[in-house]
Amino acid sequence: MTNRAPSDGSVVASEHRERLRRAASAAAERGIDALLITPSEDYAYLLGYSAPAMERLTCLIVPADGAPSLVLPRLEEPLARNELDGLDDAIEILPWDETDDPIQLVRAVVGGALRVALQDQMWARFALRLRAALDPAELVAAGPAMSVLRSVKSADEIDRLRAAASAADRAMQAIVAEPLAGRVEAEVSRRIRELLLQAGHDEAGFAIVASGPNSASPHHAAGTRRIDAGDAVVLDIGGTRSGYASDTSRTCFVGEPPAEFVALHGLLREAQSAACAAVRPGISGAELDAVARDIITDAGYGDAFLHRTGHGIGRETHEEPYIVASNAEPLVEGNVFSVEPGIYIRDTWGARIEDIVVCTADGGERLNTTSTELYVVG
Amino acid sequence: MTNRAPSDGSVVASEHRERLRRAASAAAERGIDALLITPSEDYAYLLGYSAPAMERLTCLIVPADGAPSLVLPRLEEPLARNELDGLDDAIEILPWDETDDPIQLVRAVVGGALRVALQDQMWARFALRLRAALDPAELVAAGPAMSVLRSVKSADEIDRLRAAASAADRAMQAIVAEPLAGRVEAEVSRRIRELLLQAGHDEAGFAIVASGPNSASPHHAAGTRRIDAGDAVVLDIGGTRSGYASDTSRTCFVGEPPAEFVALHGLLREAQSAACAAVRPGISGAELDAVARDIITDAGYGDAFLHRTGHGIGRETHEEPYIVASNAEPLVEGNVFSVEPGIYIRDTWGARIEDIVVCTADGGERLNTTSTELYVVG
Repeated sequence: MTNRAPSDGSVVASEHRERLRRAASAAAERGIDALLITPSEDYAYLLGYSAPAMERLTCLIVPADGAPSLVLPRLEEPLARNELDGLDDAIEILPWDETDDPIQLVRAVVGGALRVALQDQMWARFALRLRAALDPAELVAAGPAMSVLRSVKSADEIDRLRAAASAADRAMQAIVAEPLAGRVEAEVSRRIRELLLQAGHDEAGFAIVASGPNSASPHHAAGTRRIDAGDAVVLDIGGTRSGYASDTSRTCFVGEPPAEFVALHGLLREAQSAACAAVRPGISGAELDAVARDIITDAGYGDAFLHRTGHGIGRETHEEPYIVASNAEPLVEGNVFSVEPGIYIRDTWGARIEDIVVCTADGGERLNTTSTELYVVG
Repeated sequence: MTNRAPSDGSVVASEHRERLRRAASAAAERGIDALLITPSEDYAYLLGYSAPAMERLTCLIVPADGAPSLVLPRLEEPLARNELDGLDDAIEILPWDETDDPIQLVRAVVGGALRVALQDQMWARFALRLRAALDPAELVAAGPAMSVLRSVKSADEIDRLRAAASAADRAMQAIVAEPLAGRVEAEVSRRIRELLLQAGHDEAGFAIVASGPNSASPHHAAGTRRIDAGDAVVLDIGGTRSGYASDTSRTCFVGEPPAEFVALHGLLREAQSAACAAVRPGISGAELDAVARDIITDAGYGDAFLHRTGHGIGRETHEEPYIVASNAEPLVEGNVFSVEPGIYIRDTWGARIEDIVVCTADGGERLNTTSTELYVVG
């Protein structure tokens, strides 16, 4: 047995029918004959329930033309039929028994296809076997077709992201109101997870607590270091609520911050604020990245801004669109992403400020609303 | 940011050096020039820490000959160097920047290889790009090479599995001592998760509560159904402790069970017990599956035993070896797996009994030690 998430009770079957239709269109537009979608957030987005990614193949087949099919282990069939209530007449269910070869079942459905797209996170063990079974079909990644759908959020999805962001804000406000000096990073991280749940998340996903020199490591998690006066502390926290993710970062200082750190944080805040203000339909991910990066680079910290400016967010914490120099695609209304520049001085200190922002017709709308100031804590 | 698990503090660097050496040998024996291991339990098994599977490529390259390399995003480098303390001299770290193409970095290391193995769960988006970049190399799954190592547990790993199994037993004993009538499946499932944590798991992985007709669905999770007198209830629970998984199932009946269900459960218990007793080095997965299946089939319930008899367990809940009719490989000393036959009568009731068993020189050793009786509960 493995973990499984609850289904999206509040999204109705008609919405999923429409998503399946749009996925088929997105495939057709790319000359793809069929999308093969294994359990993943793409699968949950299309069908409204989460199946476990496991060694037994489950695979939704969305042809550019015709009705979708669902290949799945027979022992998953009762659960799937239950979860697909109201949608099962639109999907042919093809169960396989323990000693059957499910790859041949997929082949029977899509055999003869010239171009087949594999869900981005499909396991290589399946991808390699499909490659052999579907030869000479060209195999491509399904990501570009799926992200056309998933990167443009509906009003309902934006409401869910807003609710998740508010919950993360409440957890952040609570933790920056607590004294941190004398506490171990890992204990503060556990405390934040509690706060994330108390604030209304269904799951506490992560709670980075990077103190002192650890704050210069963007992906430091939370370790055995004891936080002390004179430490910068980067907090980067989030979870999921009603199937959608939150992700926000703020920087604290334990005790009176030195002028140098205040200046560094002020520069970062200026860059983050400028990037948020620059959000509008039509600006590219690369251009938006440059807005934040140029301000930091001009101040002499270009090499200390080690990562991209942001990432899309939705059912997954990281998804399209990426706010990075290599993304020339223009943003569109309904994109939701993080704006999170950081400055990291190795072995010394670091800072990051992160908000989730919606691209609307009128510009960027921040979903995180806590102050981006440097929080001075005890 | 995404979730990350704590490192295996208690496994020393010398153990990981040895695992890397054995992985290289397993590759060489299969004519594989290099193993490409993305974040997964294979990665954690080899390196001693968990990296997140994400859109930024992290890839451990284990060549059949020569020193391993680790391609990773530069912002993950400080964390990796910290986690690889004591091992970093044995591994060349190759960080890439946000606008670099990490696939080309992998190509530079393994270019010219004839046969390259991809970690079983590597994301298809990377597998497809590696296929193009490494052409004309043959790509195969790394699973068979890795499972040679991982399916034979060390004494330390068996100790961890035993501790996890004992913790699951304590949780099971506690829940079958509680009245179930009148409670909703999902509430009982949450209670079991609490009990799993209280009993010493680091994470509560799953808690299937399948009552009444739901007990006939092997992978029913836990829903809104209210448990009542006259219900069979299948409980299938587990989590992880010190990096290793637990997984055990028992069947209850609410109130006095009818003779027919007592007989069905007695048959199941006989089959489960016979399969546990048949475990020894040299018997194949298929033969062991047949031991349980033949007893159930001879009694007329063959079609009602919907799944394989068991699955290996270790860092993952499901891993090699599988106890299934298609597995002709003989078991060896140190294999650890579930023995979990089930009988499911659609729309009526079902039962499953599951123990984790170690294959020792002297036969099977059960790690779960609670009684396999039918638990009559209030």
